[in-house]
Amino acid sequence: MKDFRTISANTRLCAVIGNPIAHSLSPAIHNAAFAELDLDFVYLACRVEDVKNALAGMRALENFRGMSVTIPHKIEAMKYVDEIAEADRSIGSINTVIHEKGRLVGLGTDGPGALKALVDAGIEIDGKNILMLGSGGAARAISFTLALNTKPEQLSILDIDEDMLQQLTADLKAGTNAPVTSDLLTQSALAAAMDTADIIIHCTPVGMHPNTDASLIPADLFRSGQVVFDIVYTPLETKLLADARSRGLTVICGVEMFINQAVLQFERFTGVDAPAEVMRRVVMEHLTS
Amino acid sequence: MKDFRTISANTRLCAVIGNPIAHSLSPAIHNAAFAELDLDFVYLACRVEDVKNALAGMRALENFRGMSVTIPHKIEAMKYVDEIAEADRSIGSINTVIHEKGRLVGLGTDGPGALKALVDAGIEIDGKNILMLGSGGAARAISFTLALNTKPEQLSILDIDEDMLQQLTADLKAGTNAPVTSDLLTQSALAAAMDTADIIIHCTPVGMHPNTDASLIPADLFRSGQVVFDIVYTPLETKLLADARSRGLTVICGVEMFINQAVLQFERFTGVDAPAEVMRRVVMEHLTS
Repeated sequence: MKDFRTISANTRLCAVIGNPIAHSLSPAIHNAAFAELDLDFVYLACRVEDVKNALAGMRALENFRGMSVTIPHKIEAMKYVDEIAEADRSIGSINTVIHEKGRLVGLGTDGPGALKALVDAGIEIDGKNILMLGSGGAARAISFTLALNTKPEQLSILDIDEDMLQQLTADLKAGTNAPVTSDLLTQSALAAAMDTADIIIHCTPVGMHPNTDASLIPADLFRSGQVVFDIVYTPLETKLLADARSRGLTVICGVEMFINQAVLQFERFTGVDAPAEVMRRVVMEHLTS
Repeated sequence: MKDFRTISANTRLCAVIGNPIAHSLSPAIHNAAFAELDLDFVYLACRVEDVKNALAGMRALENFRGMSVTIPHKIEAMKYVDEIAEADRSIGSINTVIHEKGRLVGLGTDGPGALKALVDAGIEIDGKNILMLGSGGAARAISFTLALNTKPEQLSILDIDEDMLQQLTADLKAGTNAPVTSDLLTQSALAAAMDTADIIIHCTPVGMHPNTDASLIPADLFRSGQVVFDIVYTPLETKLLADARSRGLTVICGVEMFINQAVLQFERFTGVDAPAEVMRRVVMEHLTS
């Protein structure tokens, strides 16, 4: 195992910034991956309130190569980078900053991480009806990624927050060619949407620890052949996924998206293929211990 | 040995900033010491041009606990800290920044490191005639530290740079009660000073690698009983020290000051006694390999 004696002036720093940060798994995941490939990087976790100066410091410390950005800084961090891809600008948040020859490049790996989870599970998206529950930050990242990179037959979004829902719908219509519809999340709207949905992506906190007995979807609405993806990963199997699995549906756990966003960050930090199985093992060890 | 799996959100960061920084021994020294005491710290080396933002970043990254500051940033760094002791302000440079509850405290350990080298060698300073050769940054740090913490009979300073010499002399007279005299460094002034000096402290680069056959002091000026301290440590034994040793004088190598400045930094970073022998071993391994 890589030890501290290997650290020299060539060692590059990566870190996650957020607040709170005490329970971040990111140092464990990335350091295990660096060690696996014997890369001269170290990954720390930093509690930060002042995002602006954290990024100014990254720019000044020339070997500070990569940053993961988490709550509550994913929106504000966009202001202090030099370059952001159009898709990430539309999404309105970033979770990654790469220090590239004196320039800071911001990008998001949450949406691509979710798409990779679907693809890795062998799910065909083109031509399918997608139902997305929720229109917050994760829903924005995932819906833009799908809209820009796949060809669903329809992308339906339901939420209880009408302002947020209308904003996302308008932004998707302005920024993509995806066939988007949206509706207020009511019992009847949900029942109607479930009737035609092929792939359901749940992007709200409902069912997250400690409220693990909650689910947005009454179990009798599931239809055979549906795919259910829940971005919640504490617990690893939410009530939503347990209900879907008991009906024989294909389920994808949020931990896949969490692992993939880290895998994609790692590949941007280092420029090499991530040892995804090592990263998965670290995540699963922590989440099941 | 401490490995990267121990890194978590509790891990604190220390780093040296400078330019160039590629050959810094500081990561090896401090990481070995952290590991020896099983302290949850990691130490990196960062090439930095923009000192202001490096320190702004330190302030924003809440677990960025300690910084070593080296050439060319020891003077400029003073501008961006919140607090500097009076002695360090007089010296005009710092080599250490401590992040203390949101405040950055600047301080110097070069002067105290030199004093500790003298004390550890059992040298009595009070009542003695000190001859200091040179009036640059290191001479400023050492002369102020001696002037404020010991009671020499006389502190004589010789240099070839008259402006720098007069500035240091004036600053010492204004800021301390030490009996300071100074003179331009000529053959006759050196001979006269050597005639009464008890302790000679050499603070110029003369004799440093690759010019290892040079020495400021003709060997025939040494008198028995004198102590000779050379702050140059590449080579470990300069011609000055070799000449002094061959006359039977007590000699102190600059590596002692180098080790001690790191020991004192470590103790400010961590709040615990440094494992000085471990740190010495790392330094000697690198300097003799």
